[in-house]
Amino acid sequence: MSTVTTNLDDDDARRLPELAVWARGVRRSALQEMLTEILRPGVLSFALGLPAVELFPSAAYGEAVARVLEEDPRALQYGPPSRALKRHVVGLMERRGVECREEQVFITSGAQQGLSLVARLLLDEGSEVLTEELTYTGFLQAVEPFSPKLLTVPTDLETGIDTDAVERLLRGGARPRLIYTVPDGHNPLGVSVSREKRAHLVELARRYGVPIVEDDPYGLLSYDGPPAAPMRALDERWVFYVGSFSKILAPAVRAGWVVAPEELMPHLSIIKEASDIDTATLSQRAVARYLEDDPLDEHLTTLRREYGRRRDLLVGALRKHFPEDSRWSVPSNGVFVWAELAGGVDTQELLGRSVREEGIAFLPGGAFSADGMARATNCMRLNFSHTPPDRIEDGIARLGRLVCDASKG
Amino acid sequence: MSTVTTNLDDDDARRLPELAVWARGVRRSALQEMLTEILRPGVLSFALGLPAVELFPSAAYGEAVARVLEEDPRALQYGPPSRALKRHVVGLMERRGVECREEQVFITSGAQQGLSLVARLLLDEGSEVLTEELTYTGFLQAVEPFSPKLLTVPTDLETGIDTDAVERLLRGGARPRLIYTVPDGHNPLGVSVSREKRAHLVELARRYGVPIVEDDPYGLLSYDGPPAAPMRALDERWVFYVGSFSKILAPAVRAGWVVAPEELMPHLSIIKEASDIDTATLSQRAVARYLEDDPLDEHLTTLRREYGRRRDLLVGALRKHFPEDSRWSVPSNGVFVWAELAGGVDTQELLGRSVREEGIAFLPGGAFSADGMARATNCMRLNFSHTPPDRIEDGIARLGRLVCDASKG
Repeated sequence: MSTVTTNLDDDDARRLPELAVWARGVRRSALQEMLTEILRPGVLSFALGLPAVELFPSAAYGEAVARVLEEDPRALQYGPPSRALKRHVVGLMERRGVECREEQVFITSGAQQGLSLVARLLLDEGSEVLTEELTYTGFLQAVEPFSPKLLTVPTDLETGIDTDAVERLLRGGARPRLIYTVPDGHNPLGVSVSREKRAHLVELARRYGVPIVEDDPYGLLSYDGPPAAPMRALDERWVFYVGSFSKILAPAVRAGWVVAPEELMPHLSIIKEASDIDTATLSQRAVARYLEDDPLDEHLTTLRREYGRRRDLLVGALRKHFPEDSRWSVPSNGVFVWAELAGGVDTQELLGRSVREEGIAFLPGGAFSADGMARATNCMRLNFSHTPPDRIEDGIARLGRLVCDASKG
Repeated sequence: MSTVTTNLDDDDARRLPELAVWARGVRRSALQEMLTEILRPGVLSFALGLPAVELFPSAAYGEAVARVLEEDPRALQYGPPSRALKRHVVGLMERRGVECREEQVFITSGAQQGLSLVARLLLDEGSEVLTEELTYTGFLQAVEPFSPKLLTVPTDLETGIDTDAVERLLRGGARPRLIYTVPDGHNPLGVSVSREKRAHLVELARRYGVPIVEDDPYGLLSYDGPPAAPMRALDERWVFYVGSFSKILAPAVRAGWVVAPEELMPHLSIIKEASDIDTATLSQRAVARYLEDDPLDEHLTTLRREYGRRRDLLVGALRKHFPEDSRWSVPSNGVFVWAELAGGVDTQELLGRSVREEGIAFLPGGAFSADGMARATNCMRLNFSHTPPDRIEDGIARLGRLVCDASKG
């Protein structure tokens, strides 16, 4: 292949460029190792947070792309981030009970980019970061390049983040650079946090000058009436709100946003420019065009009905097929149920059997442990948005048999 | 707006979260300041590297999006980066004279993301980086988060990067973590580098173990016959090739690639996951679908003919209207001509007059100076791809009058 390389002796040819220090230790995470197994064809997966393919508004979105390309000759050109999309985001935030201005909206290529940009804005090498003992793995990935010192607080299956523990840490002198949480349909616990706890956390953020990064992909996916307003509704300075179209429209459009103080927009823009130029994508223009015909209320109604039904099916199946000494909460938002099994059950081990013997996948609790795989080893995260409704009960029944076996053993 | 904030006294309310150290010093660059002026409506701009809107294959691309959405129900879902697109990239690389395998192709959301990912792979805080005295500003942005120590070598308007100067630095003991260059249609100089210099640089990279980052957005935009093969054709281990669909298809599709050693694909994937999840975008799928009908040869023929004509018009106009003591090269590739004026002319000052009095914009040479605005203060970069052909001569004639004035003064 390379005429030059072939002249080298083998040792020399196998040498590779010197990598950044952090990159030398890079290994696939336990989660990534599991994914290989989970993604095997034929496996019925409750593992990932995938939306339902059959509910994507593909035709309407395709129509929006076609319209943009027809109507706007500059649709494929470089240009500033879409102002039309910012206007729509302001409207979406209003539905969530948040008043904000276009000047406070920063368009991203999805929530993960939002988290990554905010991390780069707020973190230095080795900064302290406060999160829950069980937290979203994508957040851990976003902060990892900074080798942060993670401070963790407990999370309760019924009430979410322990804000009293946050207060104790801050009162004790800890000054993390940010507090990360998912207030509605928590990933991985599925829990939503009460109004009182939201207000408490905001009050702490302001008192101690520590910003909250409020990750809210599931706020609009609510099944038991409207959820509490996000923390951003209580404070426009100490709450960085991260939103996404991945769950309410579709992941592959790669569109999301951050609501942040207007003074910091130039900083976010410089960070994004360095990362990917920060130009308007065809997707940004198409999502804006799609929203123009105001289809979202109807679409959200469909998603809430369908996902609500799947949640009920999954929770009903857990009641019927999981052992009595297990517990789970019934999420009012989002796409995940978290199940705690009897203390002795090792869900990572169980996953191997489950995939091999029953062709059923879930994610073991340990995958969400902020301090490695140590915690929640008897827990599992079960997704209910992706599995077709007619396969949920059978899947959980088969998984339940294995869990019952493991609980006895 | 925020009920909590209003209870605070003003000082407290105006406090902002503590930012990362680098972010505290962030200011708009000289280039960004100039952009405000340059982008004023009605200004005829030779300033930016924009492709011609009227040459975008909008209809064919729209058709490709529609097909993908019709044919693939999972087109809007999360999924691994498009293998179909990797296959097409292998084909494109072959056209460029490079043999590579799909396993060496990493899909990005454009060349800027490619540069940013490679920087994160190779750089630690304060690492040394070797580039040219006049270099692409997007590269400087990509490495800036690492506060690198920049080593620079001269660039010649006719022959490009001074590889002897690179050799002297390396022989003298410098061990930068990477060498960055644009081998064809250099940004900003427009120059293409000879085969001999390419071979020399690759030989140095291998001898001293310093990888080359070969940024090649313009290799396929060649106007005087096929250019020399990129350096990646000479070595698959020490050359990281960065490619993009922005200039050969359209910027707003946000698709590009890196060709790198296969062993480093997991590292790139982990870095991209942390940044934006590294899922297949609808754009990736649509670009692959667009390429399936093999329209690229014809499209490239059109681009080469049209841009080649615009280059000739611009160079012809320079000959007619610029003073005799100025010089420029005639680029065989890309979208930029670089003009050097008489020593005393300050092109940053000239830009102000040019925009105000003639409504004509260009970029002053200083904007590309790796060490601030200090170098090339008598130079300007002129783009020829974006201006309609019938406006090129008049624009350059008007600019030429100002240049003549400034040269005399």
